[in-house]
Amino acid sequence: MRMVDLIEKKKNGVNLSKNEIEFIIGGYTEGSIPDYQMSAFLMSVYFQDMTDEEITYLTLAMANSGDMIDLSSIHGIKVDKHSTGGVGDTTTIVLAPLVASVGVPVAKMSGRGLGHTGGTIDKLEAIPDFQVEIPNERFIQLVNETKVAVTGQSGDLAPADKKMYALRDVTATVDSIPLIASSIMSKKIASGADAIVLDVTTGEGAFMKNLEDAKRLAQTMVSIGNLAGRKTMAVISDMSQPLGNAVGNTLEIIEAIETLKGRGPKDLKEMVYVLGSQMVVLAGKAASLDEAKILLEDALASGKALEKFREMITNQGGDAAVIDDYSRFGNAKFVIDLPAKASGYVHHIHAENVGIAAMLLGAGRQTKEDSIDYNVGVVLHKKVGEAVATGESLVTIYANTEPIDEVKEMLYQNIAIGDKAVEPVLIRGIITE
Amino acid sequence: MRMVDLIEKKKNGVNLSKNEIEFIIGGYTEGSIPDYQMSAFLMSVYFQDMTDEEITYLTLAMANSGDMIDLSSIHGIKVDKHSTGGVGDTTTIVLAPLVASVGVPVAKMSGRGLGHTGGTIDKLEAIPDFQVEIPNERFIQLVNETKVAVTGQSGDLAPADKKMYALRDVTATVDSIPLIASSIMSKKIASGADAIVLDVTTGEGAFMKNLEDAKRLAQTMVSIGNLAGRKTMAVISDMSQPLGNAVGNTLEIIEAIETLKGRGPKDLKEMVYVLGSQMVVLAGKAASLDEAKILLEDALASGKALEKFREMITNQGGDAAVIDDYSRFGNAKFVIDLPAKASGYVHHIHAENVGIAAMLLGAGRQTKEDSIDYNVGVVLHKKVGEAVATGESLVTIYANTEPIDEVKEMLYQNIAIGDKAVEPVLIRGIITE
Repeated sequence: MRMVDLIEKKKNGVNLSKNEIEFIIGGYTEGSIPDYQMSAFLMSVYFQDMTDEEITYLTLAMANSGDMIDLSSIHGIKVDKHSTGGVGDTTTIVLAPLVASVGVPVAKMSGRGLGHTGGTIDKLEAIPDFQVEIPNERFIQLVNETKVAVTGQSGDLAPADKKMYALRDVTATVDSIPLIASSIMSKKIASGADAIVLDVTTGEGAFMKNLEDAKRLAQTMVSIGNLAGRKTMAVISDMSQPLGNAVGNTLEIIEAIETLKGRGPKDLKEMVYVLGSQMVVLAGKAASLDEAKILLEDALASGKALEKFREMITNQGGDAAVIDDYSRFGNAKFVIDLPAKASGYVHHIHAENVGIAAMLLGAGRQTKEDSIDYNVGVVLHKKVGEAVATGESLVTIYANTEPIDEVKEMLYQNIAIGDKAVEPVLIRGIITE
Repeated sequence: MRMVDLIEKKKNGVNLSKNEIEFIIGGYTEGSIPDYQMSAFLMSVYFQDMTDEEITYLTLAMANSGDMIDLSSIHGIKVDKHSTGGVGDTTTIVLAPLVASVGVPVAKMSGRGLGHTGGTIDKLEAIPDFQVEIPNERFIQLVNETKVAVTGQSGDLAPADKKMYALRDVTATVDSIPLIASSIMSKKIASGADAIVLDVTTGEGAFMKNLEDAKRLAQTMVSIGNLAGRKTMAVISDMSQPLGNAVGNTLEIIEAIETLKGRGPKDLKEMVYVLGSQMVVLAGKAASLDEAKILLEDALASGKALEKFREMITNQGGDAAVIDDYSRFGNAKFVIDLPAKASGYVHHIHAENVGIAAMLLGAGRQTKEDSIDYNVGVVLHKKVGEAVATGESLVTIYANTEPIDEVKEMLYQNIAIGDKAVEPVLIRGIITE
């Protein structure tokens, strides 16, 4: 088999076999296929697409290129959750204790992030003394005994994906549905989950800017997950405005606690119930999404979910007293409100630019070397559709540096107020098979 | 400017500017743009194509990447001729003395070849003592004094093309019209000709297997030649059967001499007149193609063309007595006739496979390291459309090794005899602007 012939085949729109795809991924990972052939192949995939079967072979070959995490010693059906990314997305922090509290084992491996704020692991580190590096045996023991633990990624997961992603980044081949889908799913499969719930975001704050692409990506990932023997469902959610109100690490942890106390923002709650219901169904703890939602509502209302979060923090060495006393978190030096300059209805909040504003304050990393300031960020007081009067606070800025004129200006420019009330739609689709 | 952004642009079908294309070719030639970005770019060009303006910028940037030959000290309009390749193509050897004999300066730089037989330079070396390496000043002096000289390529012509071609070969990006056109034309432009005549072959023995592609390639090269300030014309010619009767180095030189004596095969003569007329017109020696053809017919009939060839051989140290005594060429040990197994009309001769048969005999190189056997090859006695009776010789094989059963079988299988007479068409189109 020669790589040049396989590039030619894909270039001509011919489907590749399992063997051929394994030859490509194996050869590329070990280095016998050079970058210049791989990039030509990836560009051919961009133009000629792949069938669900081809993407499944690709995904499995990528997953098998490195360590495969073995979670079989954890009792029950392990459900993983993945989001394609957004701004102010605190969902995982609420979901982990919530679904664990109804008996779903949550063995969450999560990464640090580049972007507007840190990743889930970074956010949890905003809790004083919280440990995210847990030895493997302790991780499994915690999930078996308490149903929940969150740890940083260990091992060499899907090295083919790491190498391919670095190449795609410099060869304009990032925005290809088969390549995005296989990149995400290869890591999920290598992480050892039995079932997967996907949150595919769409809109200005998401990677998929339009709904059609998001639907296609979601459908593709659900198909390949199921073809690969992992029960998979997906939600397509709107990320044209940030999710919830908080964008920032400590701020989002507080928002997660508030949500577990039943006082969270409406959109974040909706998101948590939709994704959580899918997790509960896939874990076999409820027969239908409706039944699952009732279980989750009960766990939240009864305080079981909040207690599970307290237990999780304690298990991982963190200061669980933060749950009752937010002053135990670090504080920002400057807390500045931005008053609305007009009355009307918020009709647009540009998610990505609000995220960039938070990053400029120090809440996220631009490069891997950057450190995160846990205590900075923004809290939105008026989401899309809400009425606002001149002078009311639109947003509170938490900063450790001054002046922040650039950030203020950026926020003003990206929160638009209009005359008419608009009704935001959060859930844009649900794909269950 | 970042290469990744330019790949993205071309991927999205946006036309690139002169500056952008110069950035790509300059960066790739000097090594600041790596192969993996270039191959992704080339694949994008394959799918998104280029406008004639873009291809012209590309061609000129490639031509300017290395030495530009200066032929300005040669008097008159220098016309170069290029063929996209065929089997048994002896045209250049006839054309050089023929058009020189009517006053057109022929400063021909030619390459050695990989393929069925050698390139023009290799074929000329079949003439005892013929020298193809001529110092530059002597080359220019010869053309000024006698109108004709043929030399091997000197200097570092279009290194960008060399590097790109090697990359295209292993990344399945050879068959792209903009890339083929710019590869050919960049070398022609760097070679210093004022005007260019192109023979774009089509059919089984050619690189362009179908007529539509050949037309598009010819039209593209004529457009970019003219946009680049070199008057350019093209002929589209059929290469489904070999051109002329001989396939082999010495055999083709003899065929060229026969043609200059007025006894050449009909199709080769037609080809020589069509291409030669364009050369004469572009050189300003005739006002129309018809007028040019009459000049050439006179030069051939009067023996002026043959004498010019004799002069050219003598000038370059060769044994011009071969013209009158073919026994001065080297001979093949075995001369074997293949008798027709049926009566009828030849309706098909598969050019490429006849070429491969000649290569198997040793007439061509498979790798750069192979040496050529000048004296082997095949001579076809019956071309497409000609009647043949059982037992008549279809083809004579000149071999230096035995057995040659594989070659015999290959020739039988690729010369098809049918019941009906067919009329072959040689010239499939002429593009003058």
